[in-house]
Amino acid sequence: MFGNYFPITDTVRHLILIIGSGFLAFTIAYLSAEPFIGLLRKWKLGKNIRTLASDGKNAELYNALHQKKTGTPTMGGILIWGSTLLTILLSRALTYFGFFEHSLLSRKETYLAIFTLGTVALLGMTDDLFNIKGWGKSKGLNIKPKFFWLTVLALLGGLWFYYKLGYNQIHIPGVGDFSLGLWYIPLFVFIITGTANAVNFTDGLDGLAGGLIIIAFGAYAGLSYAHGLFILAAFCAVICGATLAFLWFNIPPARFIMGDTGALALGATLGVIAMLTNTVLILPFIAAIFVIESLSVIIQLTSKKFFKRKVFLIAPLHHHFEQLGWPESQVVMRFWIVGALVATLGLLLGLVGMGD
Amino acid sequence: MFGNYFPITDTVRHLILIIGSGFLAFTIAYLSAEPFIGLLRKWKLGKNIRTLASDGKNAELYNALHQKKTGTPTMGGILIWGSTLLTILLSRALTYFGFFEHSLLSRKETYLAIFTLGTVALLGMTDDLFNIKGWGKSKGLNIKPKFFWLTVLALLGGLWFYYKLGYNQIHIPGVGDFSLGLWYIPLFVFIITGTANAVNFTDGLDGLAGGLIIIAFGAYAGLSYAHGLFILAAFCAVICGATLAFLWFNIPPARFIMGDTGALALGATLGVIAMLTNTVLILPFIAAIFVIESLSVIIQLTSKKFFKRKVFLIAPLHHHFEQLGWPESQVVMRFWIVGALVATLGLLLGLVGMGD
Repeated sequence: MFGNYFPITDTVRHLILIIGSGFLAFTIAYLSAEPFIGLLRKWKLGKNIRTLASDGKNAELYNALHQKKTGTPTMGGILIWGSTLLTILLSRALTYFGFFEHSLLSRKETYLAIFTLGTVALLGMTDDLFNIKGWGKSKGLNIKPKFFWLTVLALLGGLWFYYKLGYNQIHIPGVGDFSLGLWYIPLFVFIITGTANAVNFTDGLDGLAGGLIIIAFGAYAGLSYAHGLFILAAFCAVICGATLAFLWFNIPPARFIMGDTGALALGATLGVIAMLTNTVLILPFIAAIFVIESLSVIIQLTSKKFFKRKVFLIAPLHHHFEQLGWPESQVVMRFWIVGALVATLGLLLGLVGMGD
Repeated sequence: MFGNYFPITDTVRHLILIIGSGFLAFTIAYLSAEPFIGLLRKWKLGKNIRTLASDGKNAELYNALHQKKTGTPTMGGILIWGSTLLTILLSRALTYFGFFEHSLLSRKETYLAIFTLGTVALLGMTDDLFNIKGWGKSKGLNIKPKFFWLTVLALLGGLWFYYKLGYNQIHIPGVGDFSLGLWYIPLFVFIITGTANAVNFTDGLDGLAGGLIIIAFGAYAGLSYAHGLFILAAFCAVICGATLAFLWFNIPPARFIMGDTGALALGATLGVIAMLTNTVLILPFIAAIFVIESLSVIIQLTSKKFFKRKVFLIAPLHHHFEQLGWPESQVVMRFWIVGALVATLGLLLGLVGMGD
C-alpha cells in the first residue's frame, strides 16, 4: 500500500535549496519592510518627481498624472538587494554549521551576478540621492555621468567574460552556438546597459517593475536549473523572494518605490544572468515588457527629433495607456499578464532549444 | 558553427500542441469579447447584488462596499467555456484536415473534463438567470436546489470514475498510492462540490477568481504534461487562454463578471482534473486561495451560529481586507501573488513526489 519513504534525491535537494533560499529572502525582506519604510520617512528620502520631459521641456501631461506621488519614499531597492546579500551571507553561515550543503557564494555561478548587483546598486543609490537632494540640474545624477559609469561597469564585465572566462559565443535556440569573437564585448556592454535602462524606464507605476522583475528572475531560476546551475537558480529565487516582499508594499497605492538603486541594479543583474547562461536570444521574451517600454522611449524621442511629432501621448508606454484613461492598477495588471505570457513562451523556447 | 536544424522532436510537438491550443482559445475569446459584452448589455443581463447576508439578515457592510457594482453584466463565464468548446471543435476540424496530429477530444484524457465543464456551466447559467430575473427569494436559484443538482452531477462523476474507470486510489506525494475502496466516491463528491463552491465564493472582486483560475489551470497544464497526459495539458492551456482574454476585460474596473456559469463550471472542472491526474493532495496548494476563502466562510458561519460573533469583518476573506481599507485592486493583486506562490510550491511538490 505504501511505497518507500520520501527519498532525498539530488533533485529534491536542489529544489529545497532553491525554494528554501527564496523563502528565506522573502522572510528577511518582509520582516524588515515596515521598519525600513519608517527609516526612509524619517530621513525624508522621498522622491522628487521630474518636471522636465526628456527633451528638456516642461512635461505637462506627465505632471498632471504624477504630481500626487511626490514625497513617496524612494530607494526601496535597498530592501531588495540588502535582503539578497544578507540571505547569501546567511547561507554561508548555514553551510558552515552544516545546515546547507551549498552556500550561495559560488565562484563559478554567482560571484559575477552578486558583484553586478552590488556595484550597480551603489551607482543607482548615488543617483537617487542626487534626485532627493535636488543636486544637479535635472534632479538626479545627470544622464551623462550615470550612463558613463554604467558603461564602464558593463565594459569591465565584458572584458572579464571574454578574457578571463573565455566566453565568445551566443546560443541560437534549436540551431547551435555562434562565435562572435571580439564582438562579444560590445554585445555584452549593450545587453547590460540596455537591461539596466529598460527596467529603469519601466519603473514608473506602482508595482509594475517589481512584478515584472519577479517574472523575469522566476523564468531565469527555471532556465538556470535546466542548465544545471543550481546555485545560480537559488540566487534568482532569492531575488524573486526579496522582490516579492518589496512588491507587497509597492502594490498601488505604494508605500515606497524602488528607485534607481533597485531598477538599475536588478536590470543589470538580469543582463549578466542572461550572458552567464548564454541565453541572450531568450532574454527579449523573458524581459518582453522591459524591451517594449524601451522601444517606446526610443521611438518617441526619434520621432520628436526628426518628425517633430509624438507617436505616443507620453512615453514610456505605461503612461500612454494611463493617458488613454486606464486606471493605474489596470495598466499594471495587464502589463504583468502580457509579461508573464511572453516570459512563459521564452522559458519554453529556451528549454526546448537548449540542447542544439 | 551551426548545429543541426531545428529538430521536431516529440517534446516540441507536444509543446506546440499545448501552447498553440492556448493561444487559439485566447484569440477566439479576445476577438469575441467586445461583441459579447455588447450583447450582455443589450439583453440587460446585469447582476443584482445580493442584499441579504448568508444568515438571512441584511448585509449592511457588504452593501456599502458593493452597491456600485449592481448592473455590471454577468454571465461572462459563457465567453470562457464557449471559447473553450469552440477551440476543441476547431481542433477536431484541424485534425481532420491534417493540421493537428491530435484533436482535443480524447476519450481517455478530456471527455470527462469537457462533460463537467458543459453540464455545470448550464447549471450555473440557470442560477445566473434566476438572479438576474429576480426569481426565487434570495435572488438566485435557491441554495438548496443548486447544491442538490451539483451534488447529483458530482455523484454521477464519482460513480463513473469508480465503476467505469476503476479509480479507487489517491496518491500521497513521496509515499505512494493509498486505496480508498468505496470511500473514493464520497471523496470525489466532496472534491467536486468543494472546488465548485470555493471558486464561487472567491468570485467577489474584479479579476480575483479569473487570475487564480489561470494560475490553477496553468499549474495543472504542467502536472498533466509531466504525467504524459498531453491532450489534457492542452485542455488546461485552452482554459488558461480563454480565461486570460476574459480577465483582460474583467480587471478592475470590470466590463463584465463571470457569474456562476463561469465560477461553478471552472471550479468543478478543476476538481475533476485533480481526480483524473490523481493529485488530490496537491490540489489544496494549487487552489490555495480558493480553499482559504471557503474556510473563511465556514469559520464565519460556524462562529456566528455557535458563538454569536463574527471572526472576520465580512466573509469571504477578500471582503474582510476591503473592509480594513485595502483598495479592491490591492486585495486582488496580493491574493494573486500568494496564490501563484503556493501553486508553484504545489507544482514542485507534485513533480518531485510523482514517482513514488
